[in-house]
Amino acid sequence: MPPADSKVGVTLPDVANQVGQNKIAVNFVWTLVTGFLVMFMQAGFAMVEAGLCRVKNANHTYMMNFFVYGCGLLAYWLIGFAIQMGGAAGNGNLGGLQSLSVEHHWFSTSWGIFGGSGMFLSGHTYDVGVMVIFLFEMVFMDTALTIVTGACAERWKFLAFAVSSVLMGAFTYPIYGNWAWGGGWLSQLGANLGLGKGYCDFAGSGVVHAVGGITALAVALIIGPRIGKFNRDGSSNAIIGHDISAVLIGCFILAFGWFGFNPGSTLGASAAGNLRIGSIAVNTMLAGCTGTFGAILYMWALKGKPDASMSGNGLLAGLVAITAPSGFVSTFGAAVIGLVAGGLVCLSCAFVENFMKVDDPVGAISVHGTNGLWGVISIGLFADGTSNYGGSWNGVTGSVTGIFYGGDGWAQLAAQLVGVSTLLGFLFTFSFLLNLILDFFIGQRVSAETEIAGLDIPEMGQLGYPEFVFRDEPSVLAHANEEYAVA
Amino acid sequence: MPPADSKVGVTLPDVANQVGQNKIAVNFVWTLVTGFLVMFMQAGFAMVEAGLCRVKNANHTYMMNFFVYGCGLLAYWLIGFAIQMGGAAGNGNLGGLQSLSVEHHWFSTSWGIFGGSGMFLSGHTYDVGVMVIFLFEMVFMDTALTIVTGACAERWKFLAFAVSSVLMGAFTYPIYGNWAWGGGWLSQLGANLGLGKGYCDFAGSGVVHAVGGITALAVALIIGPRIGKFNRDGSSNAIIGHDISAVLIGCFILAFGWFGFNPGSTLGASAAGNLRIGSIAVNTMLAGCTGTFGAILYMWALKGKPDASMSGNGLLAGLVAITAPSGFVSTFGAAVIGLVAGGLVCLSCAFVENFMKVDDPVGAISVHGTNGLWGVISIGLFADGTSNYGGSWNGVTGSVTGIFYGGDGWAQLAAQLVGVSTLLGFLFTFSFLLNLILDFFIGQRVSAETEIAGLDIPEMGQLGYPEFVFRDEPSVLAHANEEYAVA
Amino acid sequence: MPPADSKVGVTLPDVANQVGQNKIAVNFVWTLVTGFLVMFMQAGFAMVEAGLCRVKNANHTYMMNFFVYGCGLLAYWLIGFAIQMGGAAGNGNLGGLQSLSVEHHWFSTSWGIFGGSGMFLSGHTYDVGVMVIFLFEMVFMDTALTIVTGACAERWKFLAFAVSSVLMGAFTYPIYGNWAWGGGWLSQLGANLGLGKGYCDFAGSGVVHAVGGITALAVALIIGPRIGKFNRDGSSNAIIGHDISAVLIGCFILAFGWFGFNPGSTLGASAAGNLRIGSIAVNTMLAGCTGTFGAILYMWALKGKPDASMSGNGLLAGLVAITAPSGFVSTFGAAVIGLVAGGLVCLSCAFVENFMKVDDPVGAISVHGTNGLWGVISIGLFADGTSNYGGSWNGVTGSVTGIFYGGDGWAQLAAQLVGVSTLLGFLFTFSFLLNLILDFFIGQRVSAETEIAGLDIPEMGQLGYPEFVFRDEPSVLAHANEEYAVA
Repeated sequence: MPPADSKVGVTLPDVANQVGQNKIAVNFVWTLVTGFLVMFMQAGFAMVEAGLCRVKNANHTYMMNFFVYGCGLLAYWLIGFAIQMGGAAGNGNLGGLQSLSVEHHWFSTSWGIFGGSGMFLSGHTYDVGVMVIFLFEMVFMDTALTIVTGACAERWKFLAFAVSSVLMGAFTYPIYGNWAWGGGWLSQLGANLGLGKGYCDFAGSGVVHAVGGITALAVALIIGPRIGKFNRDGSSNAIIGHDISAVLIGCFILAFGWFGFNPGSTLGASAAGNLRIGSIAVNTMLAGCTGTFGAILYMWALKGKPDASMSGNGLLAGLVAITAPSGFVSTFGAAVIGLVAGGLVCLSCAFVENFMKVDDPVGAISVHGTNGLWGVISIGLFADGTSNYGGSWNGVTGSVTGIFYGGDGWAQLAAQLVGVSTLLGFLFTFSFLLNLILDFFIGQRVSAETEIAGLDIPEMGQLGYPEFVFRDEPSVLAHANEEYAVA
Repeated sequence: MPPADSKVGVTLPDVANQVGQNKIAVNFVWTLVTGFLVMFMQAGFAMVEAGLCRVKNANHTYMMNFFVYGCGLLAYWLIGFAIQMGGAAGNGNLGGLQSLSVEHHWFSTSWGIFGGSGMFLSGHTYDVGVMVIFLFEMVFMDTALTIVTGACAERWKFLAFAVSSVLMGAFTYPIYGNWAWGGGWLSQLGANLGLGKGYCDFAGSGVVHAVGGITALAVALIIGPRIGKFNRDGSSNAIIGHDISAVLIGCFILAFGWFGFNPGSTLGASAAGNLRIGSIAVNTMLAGCTGTFGAILYMWALKGKPDASMSGNGLLAGLVAITAPSGFVSTFGAAVIGLVAGGLVCLSCAFVENFMKVDDPVGAISVHGTNGLWGVISIGLFADGTSNYGGSWNGVTGSVTGIFYGGDGWAQLAAQLVGVSTLLGFLFTFSFLLNLILDFFIGQRVSAETEIAGLDIPEMGQLGYPEFVFRDEPSVLAHANEEYAVA
Repeated sequence: MPPADSKVGVTLPDVANQVGQNKIAVNFVWTLVTGFLVMFMQAGFAMVEAGLCRVKNANHTYMMNFFVYGCGLLAYWLIGFAIQMGGAAGNGNLGGLQSLSVEHHWFSTSWGIFGGSGMFLSGHTYDVGVMVIFLFEMVFMDTALTIVTGACAERWKFLAFAVSSVLMGAFTYPIYGNWAWGGGWLSQLGANLGLGKGYCDFAGSGVVHAVGGITALAVALIIGPRIGKFNRDGSSNAIIGHDISAVLIGCFILAFGWFGFNPGSTLGASAAGNLRIGSIAVNTMLAGCTGTFGAILYMWALKGKPDASMSGNGLLAGLVAITAPSGFVSTFGAAVIGLVAGGLVCLSCAFVENFMKVDDPVGAISVHGTNGLWGVISIGLFADGTSNYGGSWNGVTGSVTGIFYGGDGWAQLAAQLVGVSTLLGFLFTFSFLLNLILDFFIGQRVSAETEIAGLDIPEMGQLGYPEFVFRDEPSVLAHANEEYAVA
């Protein structure tokens, strides 16, 4: 117990100064610790994705998930952060009693397309607040990148993966990130066109997950399905992963990290609006739970038993969907959003495989793409008008409200749908063309010989588990879509 | 460095208001971050339990540990939290300088049996403090549930597990939780009967671990031992787990999460009494260490070498035992409590297997049940009378003191023993009957064919590691207790 | 939202007292949470080291990494902490507005050799600040110990490992720790000899990693290379690890924990200098990234493809190198330091194996030893003179500045080189002699029969993965250095 301290000078300015220091300290601690949790999600993604792949590609899949952290950081440090957040230089809000919190559009631009200042953090290295934000934004960006490696696993050339990831971290992600969070035109739809509070995306169902899922779709279309996935008659074969323990432990790591992802997106703890961090955490937890239930009940009804992979994907789908609305909805809304997500991910996986004929080994397009869009839309439905992250946040007074809660619900829903359209239209096209060009220059896909043998030895020089003995693969896989085998 | 800020209005009420915000912020940050660590323990439990099971049941064991998180959350959200904490509505202690901290019995009742308000958090969704508490209490509850899946692994029907877990999260856990932490009669033993400070259980050796371990015993008795565990003459066979790496990494995850479990149970950081968080963390660390040493020395003396499984269980036993007393004892007391726990878990495992003839594949009954009770009792011995979590905490002034430190030690020990008796008497009976009824209606155990083949394909539809090649099991296991094989 | 609270007494001393409580609270929360992250690194070390070993030694390698936590804690609690930090009793800086932060040399001595007060924390059990520091310092010490188990894996007798680790936690580590962080003579080089600010090592590239790596070298020299590593002609064979997934996930856990290691080393958040925590975190992240790139590019240039093990070691090398300078350099400096580390670790691994003929299965000597020294030196080059952790920190006013930034750069570099010389001279000799004596009394190495069979059954009584089927080892390994096989 600290004794009464005779040294306290007790002048009000002294005390006020320390109060401001404490405020900044607790906001920094919160934002950094939650950012660390988000960084740890990389390990979860690695385990889920590799666990759902075959053992002959284990080293390659783990290595893509490992190296994407380096690729993304390099690209974001050199270029991406400046594009996303560099619309206006400087910030003056760290002194005294003022708050770091709730500054998603921290460097504000007005109706902007992208920023530019701050490449490799030049000019900001001693700006303590920018450093905290950089760390937090960097790990979010990296989450988007690592989604793509899942959908393209077991056939993506390592060099192409690395270059594609650098380009995504430098350009694709930051452009949409600027529009939504960097003060760009989507965030100004409210102030400029009267669409509610403008496009809202609390922690990134759209900015992070839909961007990742849609880019995953674009690249998966370019590189095509794995040999053996589809038969000549168009029917598909199940290709099961090699390690359920990695899948489920990876899901727990992701669910753990999501408590950084969503609650941390307040970017602070000490401010009236930020007291909602507990609510955001509970919403996150609940949507993950109902997402799990949704997927388990769906699979149980369909197959008579639960399915481990889809259970995991149900959890993740619920978490993806609640990411955007987590700061704006009630616990009941969160539970409904998650339950829908749990069913949606099962339907979407079937749709992507059976109708679109796209091969996505881990379900990344459905988990992050489909449910990312669902999360963005759900704000326009379930936002309950009680959040209060600063009076004039997003340039419009008042709170975010969806159609189920009256107010300017329809206008808000319209803003959300503009975001969805931008993701499906612009972002998909941009990402597709970028990767098509890359495919032309260096080739995105490994050779058929490499793919059939497994990518580990030809691409990585070593097996994932060199001393273990494995079964032969079912021969059906080797003879299914021979067009790839002979290509 | 923040500059002196000319905008500081410097009126004392302004400053005081911000000071209150900062206090709530740091208390919320502490309680949420430590709660996240406790949630992550689910991954540790999954790895320890599955690692100690055979590979033919790996998927099933991982899936029980995965889904229990969803089952528990749903039950606790709908019913459990209201029973445990809903004895009185509302709270008024979040404003200004007041503290969130140290409110285990946050909604107070008086000599109550159980609460009822707040089902699916209705009425509390915008009460920021309740949301933080809900998250923290939910992950504690879930820890109790996941203990049972260990003792019942390799033979528990998945549907029965799910229903049993929902019932435990809705009723069994919250009832005792109310008595100890929700303002119920156990916590009032001091105020009402003069038994020290009443039943004390700082972070839940009793409320969480003994409840889990005793329920595990009840369900394990109902479903019976695994085929092959016991021979017709009553002797037992060792059935070794499939993955030591999972066991030991799981133990590290649990030890990491325990730094949330115990220190986080202050529910705050900014208050004189809560400065003890460092002491609680060191006590937790030390008891885990001496518990490990206790078990290793025991096994080394017995077998001439350390044993990985028992080393892990020694660590966990020390952590379980220090959970209740961690906030009340000195570092030296913590070390002694842990050392006793390390030996006790070895003795208890032998006792449960050889004398009670109960089959507990992971040692959950001994780790969490036996040592949970030891932890509760140890408060009555080692509490040193220096803790100060609010003067009138638990309705009695003064600090918690055990018999080794004089004061009202014997009265405190009596209160602790009332808790132990309640756990062994009421809680065991309640749990046993509840699961017996469940057994009658849906059957708790898989068929002998399913068990011998392994639960993964029949119950989950897929193996845990589909591409790996495994050795045959020793044939002795298939011929041991044939009464199960032919049942 | 907290309402304006009418109960606020609003006297300035009341408010000031609460402000002090808040400050201590946020500093405690930061130091504890980051300390917990460091503790979790034990799991990462276990996975990296065991993953790089053969499957026949998996249980043994995991168990060394598991038990070292207990051995280290016991030794440090009983003796080590007192030697490192017990140079002067007491502290008076927890009250009121004063800070816990930035007190690496918390118990100050003057030109001291080692401390002595506080064995098994006697006299400090109720000193809340000491408890926080003890936890944080303990997990740092344990990191140093666990480095040795990697270099000596696959042949170190378990009993010898345990005794050697206890001795290192009690003496080897704390002595150098005292000199650098406990107020000892290295930290006084500035005040006493005018060498800059004295030896600086922000988070322990020297104190933790070089001490670990150099001790690893000493013990590896004593126990000799694994049978099969070197041929009679002096050439070496590659012995590849059994689990790349463990290696890479372990690296992620380490990178996650390093956000505790470096930023947490401020020992507080609320003070002007400590606002640099965001910068320290970004520096840590960046150096890990450029370290990964350095190693991947080196291996790609050399072998035509990246190498998973060296990629992981590149990440770790960057993190080790930035540990000492993280609090003193710009982001650009951090990136350069990491890039150098990534190349250096590849060169050092080749040097240790091919020229020194030392067998280090995991590269611990190069990752932690070589790059630990590089980190210490880099302060004398890249420290940019902007850090401000208290005006008179280390007994000298002004900031730490390296030769690239003018000031007293050459004097600072000299102080760093004194530290490097002390590590290579004194620390290596002390550690070598200590372990030589231990070798004489109990023998450090298992028998050749045990080693060839694998240590798991003879030393631990059980295989790591008892049900899995494994390939035979390449026979070349069994016939290489027969001098060991027949010894």
